[in-house]
Amino acid sequence: MASKAFYAVVAGVGPGTGAAVALRFAKAYPVVVLARKPESYNDVVADIKKSGGKAIGISTDIADPESVASAFATIKKELPNTKLAAAIYNVGGGFGVKPFLESSIEEIDASLQSSPRGLYNFAKASLPLLLESTEDSPYPPTLLVTGATASLKGSARFGLFAAGKFAKRALAQSLAREFGPKGVHVAHVIVDGIIDIPRTAQREANGGAPDGKLKPDQNADRGKQIAENYWFLHTQHRSAFTQELDLRPYVEKF
Amino acid sequence: MASKAFYAVVAGVGPGTGAAVALRFAKAYPVVVLARKPESYNDVVADIKKSGGKAIGISTDIADPESVASAFATIKKELPNTKLAAAIYNVGGGFGVKPFLESSIEEIDASLQSSPRGLYNFAKASLPLLLESTEDSPYPPTLLVTGATASLKGSARFGLFAAGKFAKRALAQSLAREFGPKGVHVAHVIVDGIIDIPRTAQREANGGAPDGKLKPDQNADRGKQIAENYWFLHTQHRSAFTQELDLRPYVEKF
Amino acid sequence: MASKAFYAVVAGVGPGTGAAVALRFAKAYPVVVLARKPESYNDVVADIKKSGGKAIGISTDIADPESVASAFATIKKELPNTKLAAAIYNVGGGFGVKPFLESSIEEIDASLQSSPRGLYNFAKASLPLLLESTEDSPYPPTLLVTGATASLKGSARFGLFAAGKFAKRALAQSLAREFGPKGVHVAHVIVDGIIDIPRTAQREANGGAPDGKLKPDQNADRGKQIAENYWFLHTQHRSAFTQELDLRPYVEKF
Amino acid sequence: MASKAFYAVVAGVGPGTGAAVALRFAKAYPVVVLARKPESYNDVVADIKKSGGKAIGISTDIADPESVASAFATIKKELPNTKLAAAIYNVGGGFGVKPFLESSIEEIDASLQSSPRGLYNFAKASLPLLLESTEDSPYPPTLLVTGATASLKGSARFGLFAAGKFAKRALAQSLAREFGPKGVHVAHVIVDGIIDIPRTAQREANGGAPDGKLKPDQNADRGKQIAENYWFLHTQHRSAFTQELDLRPYVEKF
Repeated sequence: MASKAFYAVVAGVGPGTGAAVALRFAKAYPVVVLARKPESYNDVVADIKKSGGKAIGISTDIADPESVASAFATIKKELPNTKLAAAIYNVGGGFGVKPFLESSIEEIDASLQSSPRGLYNFAKASLPLLLESTEDSPYPPTLLVTGATASLKGSARFGLFAAGKFAKRALAQSLAREFGPKGVHVAHVIVDGIIDIPRTAQREANGGAPDGKLKPDQNADRGKQIAENYWFLHTQHRSAFTQELDLRPYVEKF
Repeated sequence: MASKAFYAVVAGVGPGTGAAVALRFAKAYPVVVLARKPESYNDVVADIKKSGGKAIGISTDIADPESVASAFATIKKELPNTKLAAAIYNVGGGFGVKPFLESSIEEIDASLQSSPRGLYNFAKASLPLLLESTEDSPYPPTLLVTGATASLKGSARFGLFAAGKFAKRALAQSLAREFGPKGVHVAHVIVDGIIDIPRTAQREANGGAPDGKLKPDQNADRGKQIAENYWFLHTQHRSAFTQELDLRPYVEKF
Repeated sequence: MASKAFYAVVAGVGPGTGAAVALRFAKAYPVVVLARKPESYNDVVADIKKSGGKAIGISTDIADPESVASAFATIKKELPNTKLAAAIYNVGGGFGVKPFLESSIEEIDASLQSSPRGLYNFAKASLPLLLESTEDSPYPPTLLVTGATASLKGSARFGLFAAGKFAKRALAQSLAREFGPKGVHVAHVIVDGIIDIPRTAQREANGGAPDGKLKPDQNADRGKQIAENYWFLHTQHRSAFTQELDLRPYVEKF
Repeated sequence: MASKAFYAVVAGVGPGTGAAVALRFAKAYPVVVLARKPESYNDVVADIKKSGGKAIGISTDIADPESVASAFATIKKELPNTKLAAAIYNVGGGFGVKPFLESSIEEIDASLQSSPRGLYNFAKASLPLLLESTEDSPYPPTLLVTGATASLKGSARFGLFAAGKFAKRALAQSLAREFGPKGVHVAHVIVDGIIDIPRTAQREANGGAPDGKLKPDQNADRGKQIAENYWFLHTQHRSAFTQELDLRPYVEKF
């Protein structure tokens, strides 16, 4: 279902979920990837091009409304006569898990900047464009937001991280209720587990069980992996929208 | 991905979700449908055969453990050398929405029989078979359970209905946590809205908006409808299992 | 605030929460205690009388609507011209935590009988009486229901237990929404932890920490214990009703 | 149970919940009230003094860590040899309910500043002091946080407001899990309804039903009103801590 007239935009592409999602959507659409620095998006842009897709990387400070506006202005210039079909917010943000009394105000600020404030900027720029696609995009236009276990539960030493994740979920849920009836599909994905990327190679998950981490690659032989789930959400008919999807390895405790 | 060596079983097939799910799974597997009376499954069995699939209907009282055991004994005879890949519990059960003080003990019994007790019997019979398929089924073997808005929220006059739905969800969630690590995918689907079937034709949903009801048919031109979501859950890789999926029309208030 | 014209009824009085709640409410009202066997209520009846209160024990099979009706008929005879101010449902029910495939249909039936079905009978008998007290009882008439951690979360091997608890919560929540606007306060109490009674003396809780179990007695020197929380719920003004209260020892993981 | 050696601090005192809570705690402790401007706390300070209590008002910008540190330095000087027994965070913050696309970045910043960031500063300053009181305060030292319906649910047009409230709840819940085992009681109060204050006099609640708004005053004749619930949470024994309390008028839809 490739479409020349529509594109997707992904904010936050490291080597994990964001890159995998960008690659998946690139099978159907030109994909714009936003990240603070070219180092973060160069690889995925190259990978998409190598597999025959079209990709553009734009350096963007997602917490800064002007930087986001400028990124979308660049998109308009680079992809004329092309409409937005899907926008994915996958910005991670400061982790900062530590005893509360050892934390700093800068750490909660980092969590709030990257999670609710960044999503605010991204949604503010992309929702007007998604609204323009409700009649003719291949699937209902979609805004997908990546969350985590800490989006649902505040744990000891996870307060700052959870504050950002809860807030992001609140915004995603509110937008789903406001923009769903207008034909835009807003969904929140709870990724509950460790992503299997080089940076996490040394972190044991679930006792080292096979497939104990979420796999951001595309070559599953026995089922759909994480990126395919994002794509599936995008392809739901408007009579059957999901608002929140949880994803976790079969061995994950929850 | 048709497989001759595996089958699916669907309990509860009226003209809505159950029939649509059976038809979808029949594209890949022979499908056994269980319902109290042949009137309930004759149509879907005929539809599956017409489209080139294989289907068997078995009259079963899902609340009765012996009737369920007998149904699975029949399956074993009818489908020798065939293993279970997916089991779907879609039994509706007594609705009975009314002022609490006008309700009767028979009505809460009906809700408890069809929801948690029926699922108990169905899970008890199917889980040992699903465990036998973890190594070689096309996708991780799957137990899917249909829930409703009332699975999450008890509303005025919905107490009896919600009691059954909450209990069914409790059981599904507990089974997910017990059998997930053994390789069986257990998921619960929250269907939040009215299914578009002849019986509901006169019930206005969402102000009569187009696509304001969930569509159990297969012919969507712009996105995956309800049955395709059940199939998607079945095809998730074991590194990315969903435990609970909500589905609702874009115009549904929630 | 003792009142001669009003009474309380407590279903389910073992040596723990039920007995403590009965003793607490007996400071203000005559208390009727319902339990299957006199052995279960004799002690608390004696304790209440010893401390100057009035108590009546009635043998009742709470899962049997006729037995419950008969108990309330007895109450009417024993306490003429006395109106119901508070009804507390504290029936425990079969625990049965075990691997699902080792469980039996009798065990899920026991869970469903004692939890949702028993509450159904108790609510059916007490709500009409509570409705008669909305104008003149000392505090808004109240129906309190005891739940557990398993009311909110289905864990591995806890499916049967959780099915009953979830269903009971569904009913309590639905009744709160239906009867709140009529002036009856319905609340559900999540008791998350082990009650400190002789039967649990050998069960270590929270590494043996002091006050690591919930205390059903009345003699706290530094704060209100479990029974006092039930009483507090009863005494909330109708402008500030709580629907669900969680209670757990400070050291409890949750 | 007045105590000369302990005090309470309340951040956010308008004419509603904050003032009522301050008055209630002033029956037992000297109370420090923090608000941005003297106009906000002058009345409650006067009211407390009039009823024989001790009160101090300190102008504080709760979103500014230095202003909060300075306030607590002032407290130390003003109340020497006095330890902290209870800290209540009741700061409201920008409401800003409007269509998302009409909102501004300043509005989400206001929500995040007053809710999670302000609570962060307040908790950072008060938790070390509460930890010093675990052995000898009259009741377990307590941090109470006021939330709202929007702490649990993101509604259309409420996204910015909900983002702040969700984040505040995440932090409160995380702190409860981290500091509970150390003996500090952290609880979150969901106030679900309109507070009955002059500013809301023209807002009809629940069809104008009597007691259809939460009452911040102290003179209930038939039950405990909102401030008494905060006090009750403070007086819970450490074997029976509540983490989250919902409060709503009997006629409130939820």
